[in-house]
Amino acid sequence: MEALPTVAESASLAQRYEAVRRRSLDLCAPLQSEDYGVQPIVDASPPKWHLAHTTWFFETFILKPHAPGYSMFHPLYEYLFNSYYNGVGEPFPRANRGHLSRPTLADTLAYRAHVDCAMSALFDHLAEPEVVDAVTLGLHHEQQHQELLLTDIKCILGFNPLHPTYRTPGASIGDAVNRDRHSFRDMPGGTVEIGCAADGSFAFDNEQPRHPVILQPFQLGTRLVTNGEYLDFVMDDGYTRPEFWLADGWALRKSGRLDAAPLYWRLRDGHWFEYRLDGSHLLRADTPVVHVSYFEADAYARWFGARLPTESEWESAASMQDPREATGNYVESGALHPLPACAGSDLRQLLGDAWEWTSSAYAPYPGFRARSGKFSEYNGKFMANQMVLRGGSCATPRGHIRTTYRNFFYPPDRWQFSGIRLAKDA
Amino acid sequence: MEALPTVAESASLAQRYEAVRRRSLDLCAPLQSEDYGVQPIVDASPPKWHLAHTTWFFETFILKPHAPGYSMFHPLYEYLFNSYYNGVGEPFPRANRGHLSRPTLADTLAYRAHVDCAMSALFDHLAEPEVVDAVTLGLHHEQQHQELLLTDIKCILGFNPLHPTYRTPGASIGDAVNRDRHSFRDMPGGTVEIGCAADGSFAFDNEQPRHPVILQPFQLGTRLVTNGEYLDFVMDDGYTRPEFWLADGWALRKSGRLDAAPLYWRLRDGHWFEYRLDGSHLLRADTPVVHVSYFEADAYARWFGARLPTESEWESAASMQDPREATGNYVESGALHPLPACAGSDLRQLLGDAWEWTSSAYAPYPGFRARSGKFSEYNGKFMANQMVLRGGSCATPRGHIRTTYRNFFYPPDRWQFSGIRLAKDA
Amino acid sequence: MEALPTVAESASLAQRYEAVRRRSLDLCAPLQSEDYGVQPIVDASPPKWHLAHTTWFFETFILKPHAPGYSMFHPLYEYLFNSYYNGVGEPFPRANRGHLSRPTLADTLAYRAHVDCAMSALFDHLAEPEVVDAVTLGLHHEQQHQELLLTDIKCILGFNPLHPTYRTPGASIGDAVNRDRHSFRDMPGGTVEIGCAADGSFAFDNEQPRHPVILQPFQLGTRLVTNGEYLDFVMDDGYTRPEFWLADGWALRKSGRLDAAPLYWRLRDGHWFEYRLDGSHLLRADTPVVHVSYFEADAYARWFGARLPTESEWESAASMQDPREATGNYVESGALHPLPACAGSDLRQLLGDAWEWTSSAYAPYPGFRARSGKFSEYNGKFMANQMVLRGGSCATPRGHIRTTYRNFFYPPDRWQFSGIRLAKDA
Amino acid sequence: MEALPTVAESASLAQRYEAVRRRSLDLCAPLQSEDYGVQPIVDASPPKWHLAHTTWFFETFILKPHAPGYSMFHPLYEYLFNSYYNGVGEPFPRANRGHLSRPTLADTLAYRAHVDCAMSALFDHLAEPEVVDAVTLGLHHEQQHQELLLTDIKCILGFNPLHPTYRTPGASIGDAVNRDRHSFRDMPGGTVEIGCAADGSFAFDNEQPRHPVILQPFQLGTRLVTNGEYLDFVMDDGYTRPEFWLADGWALRKSGRLDAAPLYWRLRDGHWFEYRLDGSHLLRADTPVVHVSYFEADAYARWFGARLPTESEWESAASMQDPREATGNYVESGALHPLPACAGSDLRQLLGDAWEWTSSAYAPYPGFRARSGKFSEYNGKFMANQMVLRGGSCATPRGHIRTTYRNFFYPPDRWQFSGIRLAKDA
Repeated sequence: MEALPTVAESASLAQRYEAVRRRSLDLCAPLQSEDYGVQPIVDASPPKWHLAHTTWFFETFILKPHAPGYSMFHPLYEYLFNSYYNGVGEPFPRANRGHLSRPTLADTLAYRAHVDCAMSALFDHLAEPEVVDAVTLGLHHEQQHQELLLTDIKCILGFNPLHPTYRTPGASIGDAVNRDRHSFRDMPGGTVEIGCAADGSFAFDNEQPRHPVILQPFQLGTRLVTNGEYLDFVMDDGYTRPEFWLADGWALRKSGRLDAAPLYWRLRDGHWFEYRLDGSHLLRADTPVVHVSYFEADAYARWFGARLPTESEWESAASMQDPREATGNYVESGALHPLPACAGSDLRQLLGDAWEWTSSAYAPYPGFRARSGKFSEYNGKFMANQMVLRGGSCATPRGHIRTTYRNFFYPPDRWQFSGIRLAKDA
Repeated sequence: MEALPTVAESASLAQRYEAVRRRSLDLCAPLQSEDYGVQPIVDASPPKWHLAHTTWFFETFILKPHAPGYSMFHPLYEYLFNSYYNGVGEPFPRANRGHLSRPTLADTLAYRAHVDCAMSALFDHLAEPEVVDAVTLGLHHEQQHQELLLTDIKCILGFNPLHPTYRTPGASIGDAVNRDRHSFRDMPGGTVEIGCAADGSFAFDNEQPRHPVILQPFQLGTRLVTNGEYLDFVMDDGYTRPEFWLADGWALRKSGRLDAAPLYWRLRDGHWFEYRLDGSHLLRADTPVVHVSYFEADAYARWFGARLPTESEWESAASMQDPREATGNYVESGALHPLPACAGSDLRQLLGDAWEWTSSAYAPYPGFRARSGKFSEYNGKFMANQMVLRGGSCATPRGHIRTTYRNFFYPPDRWQFSGIRLAKDA
Repeated sequence: MEALPTVAESASLAQRYEAVRRRSLDLCAPLQSEDYGVQPIVDASPPKWHLAHTTWFFETFILKPHAPGYSMFHPLYEYLFNSYYNGVGEPFPRANRGHLSRPTLADTLAYRAHVDCAMSALFDHLAEPEVVDAVTLGLHHEQQHQELLLTDIKCILGFNPLHPTYRTPGASIGDAVNRDRHSFRDMPGGTVEIGCAADGSFAFDNEQPRHPVILQPFQLGTRLVTNGEYLDFVMDDGYTRPEFWLADGWALRKSGRLDAAPLYWRLRDGHWFEYRLDGSHLLRADTPVVHVSYFEADAYARWFGARLPTESEWESAASMQDPREATGNYVESGALHPLPACAGSDLRQLLGDAWEWTSSAYAPYPGFRARSGKFSEYNGKFMANQMVLRGGSCATPRGHIRTTYRNFFYPPDRWQFSGIRLAKDA
Repeated sequence: MEALPTVAESASLAQRYEAVRRRSLDLCAPLQSEDYGVQPIVDASPPKWHLAHTTWFFETFILKPHAPGYSMFHPLYEYLFNSYYNGVGEPFPRANRGHLSRPTLADTLAYRAHVDCAMSALFDHLAEPEVVDAVTLGLHHEQQHQELLLTDIKCILGFNPLHPTYRTPGASIGDAVNRDRHSFRDMPGGTVEIGCAADGSFAFDNEQPRHPVILQPFQLGTRLVTNGEYLDFVMDDGYTRPEFWLADGWALRKSGRLDAAPLYWRLRDGHWFEYRLDGSHLLRADTPVVHVSYFEADAYARWFGARLPTESEWESAASMQDPREATGNYVESGALHPLPACAGSDLRQLLGDAWEWTSSAYAPYPGFRARSGKFSEYNGKFMANQMVLRGGSCATPRGHIRTTYRNFFYPPDRWQFSGIRLAKDA
């Protein structure tokens, strides 16, 4: 895959709209038409659904209320492509998204074109800040779905016994590198400011308000845990020793719904293979372990004699980083897989490569206010039972991530590029 | 849809092979490519899977053992398209058939072409009776799947809130006809011969051996129960009065897994609609009710003050029929839906239109022998928990049905064209 | 356990009432009070519930309609102890019977005494045949529950890791006897009369009407299959070879809900143990195998190269037996477990010892009429998805069983004393 | 119920052991023997199990390792009464606790006596601090189970359609009092110390270490939300309006597993009733609402226009309270139900009456260390998916609760005395 251009921050909103929307289609370009409709697990939606739902967002929240004379593409799409906005009406059941052969891909692309055309007309006389804000949110929303597109595509192809390749990476992972020992860096305690300041730049409501938090001194792993390191845990019977596991994670193991290896690992004839977006390969020891659940990340940390960082610890470390770190391994690199850490003793891989499970449950910041009105359901209603992940991944669009960005998934989830960074008490 | 040609019985095996195989593709012609991969309920397989599995049958049971030098199309297809033959190996899980975007439709068609080519070569010097028998079985097998193709397509399209049309029927259902009162015909008791004689014509193992059965005199409904008659049961609160229901059917009702109307009925603004393969229409009173479970058929019969016939009663009546009855409403008529009964007082609609639930559990006939060897799993292992249906339907290929033919489904199943014929003790 | 007296057929109805009712309490005598309330599986009801429900039957169907001035013991008991009679009202959920600590055992016994007292008064001027019939049915109903009492008690105690003993048997199983080879006896074909004639003696509605059936000549196993013979099947990997199993049985195996041995067998340190009502013992090779499901019985038969008999075959053989066979091993023997067959070449163990799975689905006989009115739900509504068992067991009261008696359970059920008799085509 | 004596803090360990152990039996005194064995929901254990498990704790962790020559009461009890200590071995499945009729209550009491006798001997020469600590933990453990005993008894009796009374309260709830309007009190922000200092007094590991936290100024509801106030939410269709609900809570509502009222409320003929431990009564408007899940507490708060407090907010407020607040409504009052708040404008009901859901997920404090060795599984492994509750309830033993005490349950749980205190941003 060719490296993808980064959407320039300086571009006009209309230009950014065009670039973001085109990116969604670019990400689907390597697919066969059959790949667009499948949903192997309830969590992963069909690519066709992502293309339609991101379009539905603009139609529902921008065109219908703000584009005079806008004519809906199809009266039932409001129902079919509503993800979870009860304010818009009862959504079509999530588990059935893969059961819809219609609208076809061609219909879906026509729907996109219809909405893009109406949006284009809207941009010509776009003035209201409220609408600008909504469009901006819609673009960030579509970028979120671009990451899901890739992880859901990986699920669709990786689930298939034929193990088809999504595409050849634009950036090679390179040859195997020497394994350095895991090292930790001392981090100071004290009062730190966490969250996004209200400075006019875009952020989700859940990153706000910025507020002080007291940290105890701690140590932070300087890079992500690798496959090789994680394999030591597997080989040490980590998956069958309850002393490392949270009770709910152990119950999941006993129930048979959590296999004894990361999601895309497979043991064949005594060799471990890993399915990546460029196909199935012998497991590399030097790339970061990904597709682990919170329970596995936590169990690995206990086995190691460490723990996972809190999201405040993580953010305080990341915010100290040189912004050049933003040159990390995002989707634009074309690698489509986390890369081995460069040599060094500094903190590396904080942004890009793999989402890092934190030990923080997803909860509102002090003084949190959900976006008002129709967007109130965007983030706040998920603040129970989920854990925060930080830092973005090799599937995240570059302009989309921030050090204050809070991603969240349920502890058993592992179809995202979720990895492990360790921490320790000082 | 144009009326389809009947496969001539007089044709050579190679000709019949070619005709039956082409028919499977013809049935798929109206589909969009997206329709080929969806599996809304576990029972209904994606059309692409049917196309591949019927091909797998010839590859596995004929080409591999009998075609010297045959080269398999793909080593994993043996696993992916095995339905339930444990003798061939552990099959790919049925519930996951709709999760396979690959092989694509194009790959699947290439697989069919590859096998058809090898079969064509085989026909040139086909002599062994064993192979002829296996090919014949394979063709009947594919005809069975042609009916499933249509009912599964109906499930895929009818499940979709957009209610797309499969195709315009070649034979119109016609205008609504007058409703005659349900009448019964007296049938004699005595000893009758049931099952298929070993006269060299094709029959499944479960239709044999022919054997005598004693019947008490009984009465048989002269035609299928209509939508209008069934609606009376619905309106009389038939679905909420336990006195009409078998205990297991009532438990299904209470569990919420059996709605209070046949599968494709929908109530909108006080009007009943029925989804047919030509789209959603106001419910017609004069067409036979279809897509009812055994529990519903049995409850309707009790409400009416009648019962369902046994399979012996049904067969004894059907075998007395003039063979011209074979001009019934099969898939070749192009109606793709059961038609109103012609006027008359004779027994009508015994063959074609709708499968008729009998009160007989699917069990071996006295002296039953399963086919030997690799085909031993074809029928016999399903002889528990299922009920026999008789007579074929509007989705059955004409040459495929016989008065001795035994179809079988679980009591809750209702995605087939299953209808109701009543019976009474004399 | 002392051998129990048989309830004399010649006794008056009041005497029989008293004897049957006392028997239910006698069967509970060895229990600890804690044993009365437990329900380890949904199928098995707590003993306290059986004591109350059999009492509810007399209160609901006899005292309320026929005893003027009868005062109900408690207004909610009608709801709590209704098993499945929708005509009486929505029953308390079966799965929750074990969640009721109240009424207590003392309350339950007081309920029995209250009803027995009112019944006693009723007997003084009992004349209406309808009431006599209902009382007679109530006594047979209570005898059915006496068998369930024992099998449910076995479930409660056998489920417990402490493996407590119900009681020491009154009749010793004796020393292990020599194993004779399994032999078959030729049985003639022809037309036989099946079912119970309407001669005034008691029978359930499902045994009627008597009707002719044509049998093909067949062979019948002369005795029940023993533990030792069944162990050969286990050792031959019978539980892991799909070729012996019905598809639904194999699916049950793969789902993990059917262990690879009969219900009460346990392998400890290389030795097989069997839990019996007198505790856990080394598996005896010579006693009949019991607590197998239909799927296991059928799989064993296929492995052996035989099949299970139909219920007509079974009944025709049993009806040829000398009535002295009635000296079989019923609950009155006190053995509480099937005994080794006596030596011989005749048909043995047809009545008593173990219920014998037949290959016949439970269905109405031709001309079947359910009992009218309030008892219409007694039998008929279960005529789907179940298989017929014949012959009674070591837990059946002697006077309760007949050669025409049809018991029925679902194919996976195995907490009854269900065993195996083989058959073959001639 | 007579008011219960408080266990004096000044008593010797042996005296406290004796008092705590006797209390468990006292709490069971009103039970019928049948009540001891029932488990209506998986979360609620049978009283007999609590009596045995708390005994198992002393046998396993104190007598076996520290009492020379101690002879175990029964070899299988270690397995049967292990709750979740994988270090001790695989525990008996929790869901099956109610399926064990043996050991009987008498056996269980003998087990308690056996262990108490051995403990008594141990106290005579108890010196090792490690053992003293373990005994102290065992007593706090038993006090925790005393609260569960009451809530599980309530579940057993309240589940029963007969609605039996546990016992008449020793302290009357009194006549209905006037409803004051809900008021809030301003609370300062700043840095506060949270958690239990290591000053030698007993605390669980999860309350430590004490650490500073920054709070923003906030407002705290001055008392618990009452039934009357909660009824307004119910009447305003609070249970059917998704805008108030967390996504997971709404999914629970839609699944049918969360009824539209608190656990023990029942609507009969237009009147609301509440089941309390003294039986079923017309709902009182002035007592605190209890038996609500986290989802309901959170939805109520959103409907009100408020939120739930964090555990730090709660603790900072509680720690400012006059210690005389310790005169709250604990189990010793004998009320066995939360009482109406006294009049006033101060913070009331922080301790006792009802556990208060906080918006804090249960997580380790900075620097948390699980107890070492065999007690490492006590608390830490539950730190995922659960929410913290604070303050104790009317079922909590007085000496057991502290302002730093952290209780934790899953968001859907509601069989505890869980209630609602509101908070607001300043």
